[in-house]
Amino acid sequence: MALSLPETFTSVTLAERPKANIIPGTTFQTKSDNRTPSPSTLKDGEILIKTLYLSLDPAMRGWLNNTRSYIPPVQIGEVMRGSSVGIILASKSANYKTGDLVVSNSAGWVEYAVLQEKNCEKVPDTGDGKKRSAIDALSVVGMTGLTAYFGILRVGEVKEGDFVVVSGAAGATGSVVGQIAKLKGATVLGIAGSPEKCKWLTEELGFDQALNYKDPNYAKQFREATKKRLIDVYFDNVGGEILDLALSRAAPFARFVMCGGISQYNEAVQKGPKNYLMIVSMRIRMIGFIVFDYAKEYSSAREELAQWVREGKLKRGETILEGGLKEAERGLVKLYEGANTGKMLVEVAKLNGTEKSKL
Amino acid sequence: MALSLPETFTSVTLAERPKANIIPGTTFQTKSDNRTPSPSTLKDGEILIKTLYLSLDPAMRGWLNNTRSYIPPVQIGEVMRGSSVGIILASKSANYKTGDLVVSNSAGWVEYAVLQEKNCEKVPDTGDGKKRSAIDALSVVGMTGLTAYFGILRVGEVKEGDFVVVSGAAGATGSVVGQIAKLKGATVLGIAGSPEKCKWLTEELGFDQALNYKDPNYAKQFREATKKRLIDVYFDNVGGEILDLALSRAAPFARFVMCGGISQYNEAVQKGPKNYLMIVSMRIRMIGFIVFDYAKEYSSAREELAQWVREGKLKRGETILEGGLKEAERGLVKLYEGANTGKMLVEVAKLNGTEKSKL
Repeated sequence: MALSLPETFTSVTLAERPKANIIPGTTFQTKSDNRTPSPSTLKDGEILIKTLYLSLDPAMRGWLNNTRSYIPPVQIGEVMRGSSVGIILASKSANYKTGDLVVSNSAGWVEYAVLQEKNCEKVPDTGDGKKRSAIDALSVVGMTGLTAYFGILRVGEVKEGDFVVVSGAAGATGSVVGQIAKLKGATVLGIAGSPEKCKWLTEELGFDQALNYKDPNYAKQFREATKKRLIDVYFDNVGGEILDLALSRAAPFARFVMCGGISQYNEAVQKGPKNYLMIVSMRIRMIGFIVFDYAKEYSSAREELAQWVREGKLKRGETILEGGLKEAERGLVKLYEGANTGKMLVEVAKLNGTEKSKL
Repeated sequence: MALSLPETFTSVTLAERPKANIIPGTTFQTKSDNRTPSPSTLKDGEILIKTLYLSLDPAMRGWLNNTRSYIPPVQIGEVMRGSSVGIILASKSANYKTGDLVVSNSAGWVEYAVLQEKNCEKVPDTGDGKKRSAIDALSVVGMTGLTAYFGILRVGEVKEGDFVVVSGAAGATGSVVGQIAKLKGATVLGIAGSPEKCKWLTEELGFDQALNYKDPNYAKQFREATKKRLIDVYFDNVGGEILDLALSRAAPFARFVMCGGISQYNEAVQKGPKNYLMIVSMRIRMIGFIVFDYAKEYSSAREELAQWVREGKLKRGETILEGGLKEAERGLVKLYEGANTGKMLVEVAKLNGTEKSKL
C-alpha cells in the first residue's frame, strides 16, 4: 500500500549559470508543480520516494559551469543534481518495499521523485537508528565519506608514520580523511576556518593538531607546525594560499591528493599555486581524483566505513539546515562561506506519523 | 707525461644572488688566477683536466636562489656549478690516462681543475669521432639526454599510441623527449619559440607537428591541434601560459611530467597554473622529477641513448658559443631568451696540437 501524497510538490532547477558567486533567487528557480508523481504510474522496477535529506557539496559549483569536466554540467531548466535520502512511498521493485530508506544521486533537488531501482541503494545501518543512518548515508558512508576513503588510502597511499596535512579539515570529506589517516597510524594536522572547528578536530575527532587559517598569524603557525617534519601527504580541498604554503613545506616525494579547491570555485578568474615549481624540486606527485572512478568498490568501502562508525572509531558531525527544499540554494552559498562543521545537509521533509510507522 | 699549462687560468664565481634576471658582470665574477693547478701536486686518484665544453642549463637559475631545493644553492664566492667535458692533462688515477676525455659535474666554470676520479666518467663513444662524442657527452647522452630518457619513459610512462605534447621542444631535453616518444610509437606535438625551431622539429627530428608559441594565433592553433585528440602525456619544461593551455586540453588520467618551468625562473614572483583544477576534474597525475634520482641507472640509460645515436634513431643539435669561459654568463642569459636550438654549450678552449696528438 502506498503512503499519502500532497497535490503539489516543489523542485529547484538551474535558472542561469553564475559567473562567480551563486545568487539565491537568481541562479536557481524554485517551482511548485501540481503533477506530483503518482503511485499508479509506476512501471516495473521503479520506486516513488519522498526526499528527507539533501546533500550540499562543494563540487556542486563546478556542475553549474558549461566547461569540460568529469561530469556533464547541469543544464538550464534541469532539476539541480545532488545526493539525497528518501523514504519509499510506493514500490514496483522486488528489491525495495514501502518504508525503506534509499540513497540516490538521481532524484536531485525535488520533494518527490520516481527512481529506477538501479539508481538507488539501501541506507546502510550505522548502528544508531534509522534517522542517524539516513544522515550518515549522505555523509560518513556517503559520497563524501567514500571520497575521503579512496582519496587518502588509494591516492594518498597513507601509511604508518606519515605526516598528513588536510585542508578543509572540518568539512565533510576532510574530517573523515584525517580520522582515517589517524586509524592508519599517521600524524595529522588539520586546517580549518575557526577556533571552534579546530577544537572539534583535536578534541572530538582525535587530530594531532589543528590550525585556523583565518588567524592573522596562520602562515607563521603553519611554518612552525611543519618545522620539525615536512609534509608527506597533503589532502587538498581548498586550493589558494593554503595550498601554496603547503607546497613550500612538502617533503621530497610528497603525495598531494587533489580533491577540490573550494577557495577558487566562485572566482571569475582562478589563481594557480605560485609555488607549483616545488613539484619539480621536491618530486611531488600531485594527483587528481574523482570518487566515481572507484564506483565498483563503493560497497566494500561503505561496509568498512560503517564498521568504523559502529565501533566508534570514526566520528561525524553535520550542519543540518531546516526549512525545506527552498533553503538549499542559501545553504549552498553558506557552504562556500564555511558555515558548516562536518557535512552540510538540508532537511527537505520530516516523516509524518504514517511514514514513521512504516520505517 | 703531462701536457703544458699556462701560468694563469680563469674561473667564474657567483658574486650575488639575482632577484630576477641574471645580470652579466654583476651576478657573476670572472677571475684570473695565477695558481693554475700543477701536475706535481696531484694525489692518488686525482686527475688534472683542461675544460673544453661547458653545459648551460635552465636549472642553473634555481641553483642561484637561497631556497630549499633538491640541491644546495651555489654559495656566494663559489665557482659556478655545471657539467663540463675536459681533456686529461695529467693523471694519478689507474682508470684514466693523459688525453682521455672525461665528463664531470664537479669542475664547474673553470678552465682547469683537479678532480677526483670518482667524480668523473669517460665520454661515451657516439660513433662520429671524439669531438662529436665530447659534445654529445653534455647533450644527448649527458644530463639533459638522461633527463629526457627517465622523464618520458619512467615518469611519463609513454606507450604506443599516446598523444604526447612537449614544451620547450627545441631545447636540449625537449628535443630528446619527443624523439624517444616517437621511438616508442607515440604521436608527438612539440611547442617551440620560432618557425625555424618548429621546422627543425618536424623536418629533422621527426616530430609529427610543431607549434610556435610566439605566434599571435598560438592558442587557437593549439586548441585545433588537440581537438581530435586530447593530451595523454605532457612534458613540461616551461610553465606559464603554455602549461595552462595544456591543462585545459588534458585527457582524463593524463600524465604531466614536470621537468622545469623556464618561463618562471627569472620572475621575482612566479605565476601558478590557473587551470590547475583540471588536475582534479581530469584526474591528472602531475609528477615532478629530478634526474639525480635515477643515478644508479645512468650507465645503462647512456648506453641505450648512445646506441640510438649510433643507429641514427636519435638526432641532436646544439648551439655552441665561442669565446671562452667569459661567454658563459651571457650564454646563460641567452638560454633564458630561447636563443638555442638543441643543447647550449660554451666552447671554453680548443685543443692545441700536443693535446690533439694525445687524444
